[in-house]
Amino acid sequence: MSATIQPRSAAGRAASEPPGSGVVGLLAGSGRFPILFAEAARRHGLAVACVGIKGEAPEVLSGLCDSFDVVPVTTPSRIIGAFKRRGVRDLVMAGKVHKTVMYTPYLIWHVISDPRAVRVWFYGALRRNKKDDTILLTVIDEFAKDGLRFRSALDFCPELLVDHGVLTRRRPTRPELEDIRFGWELAKEMGRLDVGQSVAVKDCAAIAVEAIEGTDRCIERAGQLCRSGGWTLVKVAKPQQDMRFDVPTIGVATIEKLRESGAKVLAIEAGKTIVIDQPEVVALADRLGIAVVALDAAEVVSAD
Amino acid sequence: MSATIQPRSAAGRAASEPPGSGVVGLLAGSGRFPILFAEAARRHGLAVACVGIKGEAPEVLSGLCDSFDVVPVTTPSRIIGAFKRRGVRDLVMAGKVHKTVMYTPYLIWHVISDPRAVRVWFYGALRRNKKDDTILLTVIDEFAKDGLRFRSALDFCPELLVDHGVLTRRRPTRPELEDIRFGWELAKEMGRLDVGQSVAVKDCAAIAVEAIEGTDRCIERAGQLCRSGGWTLVKVAKPQQDMRFDVPTIGVATIEKLRESGAKVLAIEAGKTIVIDQPEVVALADRLGIAVVALDAAEVVSAD
Repeated sequence: MSATIQPRSAAGRAASEPPGSGVVGLLAGSGRFPILFAEAARRHGLAVACVGIKGEAPEVLSGLCDSFDVVPVTTPSRIIGAFKRRGVRDLVMAGKVHKTVMYTPYLIWHVISDPRAVRVWFYGALRRNKKDDTILLTVIDEFAKDGLRFRSALDFCPELLVDHGVLTRRRPTRPELEDIRFGWELAKEMGRLDVGQSVAVKDCAAIAVEAIEGTDRCIERAGQLCRSGGWTLVKVAKPQQDMRFDVPTIGVATIEKLRESGAKVLAIEAGKTIVIDQPEVVALADRLGIAVVALDAAEVVSAD
Repeated sequence: MSATIQPRSAAGRAASEPPGSGVVGLLAGSGRFPILFAEAARRHGLAVACVGIKGEAPEVLSGLCDSFDVVPVTTPSRIIGAFKRRGVRDLVMAGKVHKTVMYTPYLIWHVISDPRAVRVWFYGALRRNKKDDTILLTVIDEFAKDGLRFRSALDFCPELLVDHGVLTRRRPTRPELEDIRFGWELAKEMGRLDVGQSVAVKDCAAIAVEAIEGTDRCIERAGQLCRSGGWTLVKVAKPQQDMRFDVPTIGVATIEKLRESGAKVLAIEAGKTIVIDQPEVVALADRLGIAVVALDAAEVVSAD
């Protein structure tokens, strides 16, 4: 526990801000990302204190982390308390937490039973602004009061960020590239407004726009609405993306969902998108004839 | 048939462009709007030649119009031919045509069997742009080649456009007004990008954004995602709205759908939204405690 946290970036540089202990906190949502983070952190010689969001965090984390507490997302006091008990000062957020949990009838019960939840949720309610960015700022503030600092999980596993280029054997056709450009501008605008990350496009018309339902349900909807198939999904980071939180992520399940729903192209943002299990993602996309391409924002916009 | 078409606007002025015959064409989609138009046109002493879109136009139109042909939307030659046979030069579009019809497997069959469809749909395909606006421009061009001019159905029944004000007994609360303002800006942006007319908002977060699925399915989705209810639907005209086509429309079914899905507020744009059967809409909203408010774009934006 005496080593300092010094994960290395892809370029081999030491992370800029050396924290004070050899334990890193992991606030874990669903999916493979928290698992890959835990593995990477341990390769870096760090102890991992995991607090898993109830109903989201994969059970397998309990075997990969030095500690594993499970807490509902609506009780920030208990989340903060668990991290403090485990000696955490620096922590990361990894994995998906479904925003719809905010709108369950149970929220009020948790809020009543947790004074910090009053601050986190009711501050938001008073400001009447539950955009992702506003909620995150409130959460960050609340954690900071107890000396808990959020860092980017990607400092520990930068190899998860996709490189620029066409990942698959199939390249997008010229018309598909035009759909990508159309969708890219729309998706960036949706990100700027903090609405969502993904849009489904065909023939330069928006088939579906993601809001809080998430990418998978946006894909399903596009499949239902565009029964002839052959459409394109564009998923990008916000212009104001904070790489510590809610970085755009795709994986094998994304490709399967795209195939089920008749999509032929997936366009993502190079250097700002996590591709979980990239070799498997590419192999599956190749088998299904789906083109996957990672682009830079600059090249999409300058292609006019 | 010798009278000229001179419907009157709400202010009692004669319409600016006097057409050459006493028959007006009605290209009818679904819903009550084409019915109300047909009634209004006949009150103006006009003969109505209706071409109903197959699967969309209400049967009752056959009894209200002087002629009634039913044609698939994907065969523009047959639509134009029907209007010409009936001596139409000026026509209006009224009622909903679901855009998803474009993406059926049957499209190619219709296109092969109709040379004009080749132009209308494949011009769009060549341009790779099936945004509403692009399709409409192609359709307008194609009709114009045969001397058919589109006019606004609202010239004949301007009383369907909603006046400014709170329509219901219940007024939006201050937080609801903030959601309206947030949703308004987002919906206007969606309109500018020709994506859709409606957004569902709660606590200044976008619950659902309408694309081609239409307002009803956007409302249903918001209801599923926001299970605690109490959200706001904002439905506005595009900044570039052409009042001849696809004017935002609400009716009794909209209020019922909002109620089923837990919405508490409906905000629409004054002077640019058709309210079908307004007394019934308001009575139902009052009974259900839903606030309906018609605002001017200027007042929403200037309220900062």
